[in-house]
Amino acid sequence: MTYLINNAADFAAEAVRGFAAAHPQYVTAVHGGVVRSTETPPGQPALVVGGGSGHYPAFAGWVGPGIGHGAPCGNIFSSPSASQVYSVARSAENGGGVILGFGNYAGDVLHFGAAAEKLRAEGIDVRIVMVSDDIASNTADKHRDRRGIAGDLPVFKIAGAAIEAGADIDEAERVAWKANDATRSFGLAFDGCTLPGAEEPLFHVEDGQMAIGLGIHGEPGVEDVPMGRADEVADLLFDGVMNEAPEGHGDRVAVLLNGLGTVKYEELFVVYGQIADRLAERGLNVARPEVGEFVTSLDMAGLSLTVVFLDDELERFWLAPADTPAYRRGEVAGERTERTSVYEVGEEPVPEASEPSRELAGRLRDVLALFEQVCADNEHELGRLDAVAGDGDHGAGMRAGSHGAAAAGQTAIERGAGARTVLVHAGTAWSESAGGTSGALWGAALTAAGGAFEDSDGADERRKVAAIVAAVDAVRRLGGAQVGDKTMIDAAVPFVDTLQGEFDRTGDLAASVAAAASAAREAADKTADLTARLGRSRVLGSKSVGTPDPGAESFTLLATALADHLGDH
Amino acid sequence: MTYLINNAADFAAEAVRGFAAAHPQYVTAVHGGVVRSTETPPGQPALVVGGGSGHYPAFAGWVGPGIGHGAPCGNIFSSPSASQVYSVARSAENGGGVILGFGNYAGDVLHFGAAAEKLRAEGIDVRIVMVSDDIASNTADKHRDRRGIAGDLPVFKIAGAAIEAGADIDEAERVAWKANDATRSFGLAFDGCTLPGAEEPLFHVEDGQMAIGLGIHGEPGVEDVPMGRADEVADLLFDGVMNEAPEGHGDRVAVLLNGLGTVKYEELFVVYGQIADRLAERGLNVARPEVGEFVTSLDMAGLSLTVVFLDDELERFWLAPADTPAYRRGEVAGERTERTSVYEVGEEPVPEASEPSRELAGRLRDVLALFEQVCADNEHELGRLDAVAGDGDHGAGMRAGSHGAAAAGQTAIERGAGARTVLVHAGTAWSESAGGTSGALWGAALTAAGGAFEDSDGADERRKVAAIVAAVDAVRRLGGAQVGDKTMIDAAVPFVDTLQGEFDRTGDLAASVAAAASAAREAADKTADLTARLGRSRVLGSKSVGTPDPGAESFTLLATALADHLGDH
Repeated sequence: MTYLINNAADFAAEAVRGFAAAHPQYVTAVHGGVVRSTETPPGQPALVVGGGSGHYPAFAGWVGPGIGHGAPCGNIFSSPSASQVYSVARSAENGGGVILGFGNYAGDVLHFGAAAEKLRAEGIDVRIVMVSDDIASNTADKHRDRRGIAGDLPVFKIAGAAIEAGADIDEAERVAWKANDATRSFGLAFDGCTLPGAEEPLFHVEDGQMAIGLGIHGEPGVEDVPMGRADEVADLLFDGVMNEAPEGHGDRVAVLLNGLGTVKYEELFVVYGQIADRLAERGLNVARPEVGEFVTSLDMAGLSLTVVFLDDELERFWLAPADTPAYRRGEVAGERTERTSVYEVGEEPVPEASEPSRELAGRLRDVLALFEQVCADNEHELGRLDAVAGDGDHGAGMRAGSHGAAAAGQTAIERGAGARTVLVHAGTAWSESAGGTSGALWGAALTAAGGAFEDSDGADERRKVAAIVAAVDAVRRLGGAQVGDKTMIDAAVPFVDTLQGEFDRTGDLAASVAAAASAAREAADKTADLTARLGRSRVLGSKSVGTPDPGAESFTLLATALADHLGDH
Repeated sequence: MTYLINNAADFAAEAVRGFAAAHPQYVTAVHGGVVRSTETPPGQPALVVGGGSGHYPAFAGWVGPGIGHGAPCGNIFSSPSASQVYSVARSAENGGGVILGFGNYAGDVLHFGAAAEKLRAEGIDVRIVMVSDDIASNTADKHRDRRGIAGDLPVFKIAGAAIEAGADIDEAERVAWKANDATRSFGLAFDGCTLPGAEEPLFHVEDGQMAIGLGIHGEPGVEDVPMGRADEVADLLFDGVMNEAPEGHGDRVAVLLNGLGTVKYEELFVVYGQIADRLAERGLNVARPEVGEFVTSLDMAGLSLTVVFLDDELERFWLAPADTPAYRRGEVAGERTERTSVYEVGEEPVPEASEPSRELAGRLRDVLALFEQVCADNEHELGRLDAVAGDGDHGAGMRAGSHGAAAAGQTAIERGAGARTVLVHAGTAWSESAGGTSGALWGAALTAAGGAFEDSDGADERRKVAAIVAAVDAVRRLGGAQVGDKTMIDAAVPFVDTLQGEFDRTGDLAASVAAAASAAREAADKTADLTARLGRSRVLGSKSVGTPDPGAESFTLLATALADHLGDH
């Protein structure tokens, strides 16, 4: 469990503050995370690596000469928000573009992706590298669709060394993908981890069992088997990784044996003794093995084995010097001078608005307040649904997001904002307040809806329908889900299809939204029959059968509330 | 708990093997531990640091340029044996003498001390530095009598840097003691740790409580108080250490915030944020703080704060480069060449023996076999007695020691050994097989008894009495205990006093030993009334009242068995 907290909500931010205080020679805290506290050469690509907190030394521990340029730090086990990624990348970027590196999880894909869109819109060259080393999470033919676990370290270490050696962004991106495609990991858990402030672990492994293919966010393993002796565990990990060795690999490998939190060093060394024998039997030569804690999962009891199949180029970068808070090797050449400026998050501008738009903004503010109320009322039930096959945070995320959005909308109105600006500010706030996949999708939905309005003008009923359709389109585009994947899309698509059809037929907004909400309710209930293929329940799809998708459910709750509200006014 | 073991008895040795396999560029495994795998300059003092296993990165993790030259690795939470220390020191020594560095625990004092005697007898200059940073373990006026905890790292780091900078053994010893005297630590535990293979933790802390002043060998804290918030814990640790700041200290400090195993990094950073504020408030400047796991205690949930009050010299050595498996900073200058030889443990010689001495040796072999049987029969009960206020390993230690001694005695006899050699070999084997304080004392006792015999001659009854007296004298001399301290001495002293008195009066060995064994039994039973002041139960003295001392009990069991044996023959 987590013993040392002040309050759970501030835990991750306080950890970043203390981390920066402990390592001033390496990092400076900025909005959303940390960047190197020393200047980087103009034109050098910036490697920005990140993800949720709770995995230290990943990711902030690797910011420094030879590896990363910055790390956005999300909440515990939650992707950093797009604005966190954006802020850190803006501080780290120095004219050479940005490589965003993260483990392949839906939330990270979404938030880093959203930040990339914003950075690119400002003319910055951005590349995305998603680490996907976990062989338990998908089949070999879908290597790049796998999750990222401890392979984060060698992939980022190798990419960072390439940059230190003078690679431009094209070259650094090439090397990073090459490292990822040469990296395989396999993990086991003996017991789960507990979120700060929580009473119970996210999962338990039965005594005498071990869970194969654990995730590093508290996702349980894909199969439980009887606990083995240390040598048997070593063999299981080694054989698992070697069965997935890339074709035509050479005889040089980098090896990491990674403890997830409470499996301690002596145990890891006992296991490594057997792995060293197996490597030698197979004629593989190890370039500087690493045995310790590199990508943890709070206090999870477990370990993983990572092997990088090296060629000369990868080996050179793997062995290159690095000097970061948590990973040091040799001496990185060059003088270091203190960083003189970082990107400061400013107040978002509020353009001048017409009276009709401001009048509409007031009505939208009421809808945001309604959403906030509905999410608060249903927080517990949404969390319960999500815990069946996911991480149980959907209720808390919806509550935090809707609260942030309502507050930001109100502030914008007090500053004289029109309809577009109110929704754009609310969208940014929802995403930032909630974090996670659904936070980003709801944030994008509000932002897109805002884009359908004007600050200079009011809106007729048809334009309001268009705004709702734009919101759902944004969710579909950014989330990548199809109907039948068991996500909010299963409710959202019937909703907009019915809305458009009814409105075209009747021209009555309130009645059309009511009909659409009914269609959403019917579709959301039917998601109980589906097996999750995407989103929060993807890995544990089969466990989700019998329970409706919490994202479809929350969408329907808000759609129904909107219909009731329009019917009353 | 410990999840990854093959079998508990081999755990520590397998961990050393895997550790060495993972770090061939730093260390080579030798009998009893590891030494640097690279040559050191002729005439450079060797810093040999060690203690029990279960504390990684301490101590083997610090072997490499800039810190240690070698590390004897004992069993989990048990001092390395004298022969382990001797072997590692012999490999590490290169003409400049040896500094033996370890935390101040009775077992380590004994075994490192015994190794020092043997090394000195061979003409090697040996200095001993005992780290004593734990302010909870004794009063300020007895700083050097305190236990060593995470202060091991800065003290050894500073001493190692002094040696790297060219210090001779006098200078290095001076700097090491100076660092120790400038170092203060204070720790807390939230829950205990579990020995490999054990079902239950060594101790529990009640939910919602924290144990102040924990030991790193599973010794519970000296006081339980209600669990605090992270900031309160930080304040408690900070105020505790600062109340013990040496008089006249300057404004520069080294700071370590050390996790003991399952308190993870983000938690430590939250605590460090508050400590950084408190340091700044007090006008103290921190030279490269360290926040992480440095001296662990298996999977204990706890943390400690260490502050070293620096002057210019200590700061220079603290900040100097180091390159070891678990602690790296900057680049240590100089070429490294692979080590070409290590000390090999050879077969002990067996001098030629007379028929009377070999005949006596056969009878001594029978006594050793008897001791082995008695220890096996009483293993569980001795362990139970020891667990009341100690670490519960006394039964296992006596069994392992007596088994090793009996086997070594038998082997010596098969090689034609006389009485002296049989006992000397048996004594070395007891110490090596058992480890721990009582193992070393029993080993020394057998060795001393052997010294009273000759390989060239038999022995009359008076000489046999002298041998028994010599054995007890050795225990008294090496263990440092007095009657009333609640140790085996409480039984051993009445035993030899009665033996000598009765034998002088009657000349009957068997009757005298029987009378002496009765005296030992009476004295051992009376130890239940005593409060432990030394030895295994020292820290938790008051908890021992009501239970006899397990060392006095095992001594009496063997004395009684000897009396019965002599009565029968």
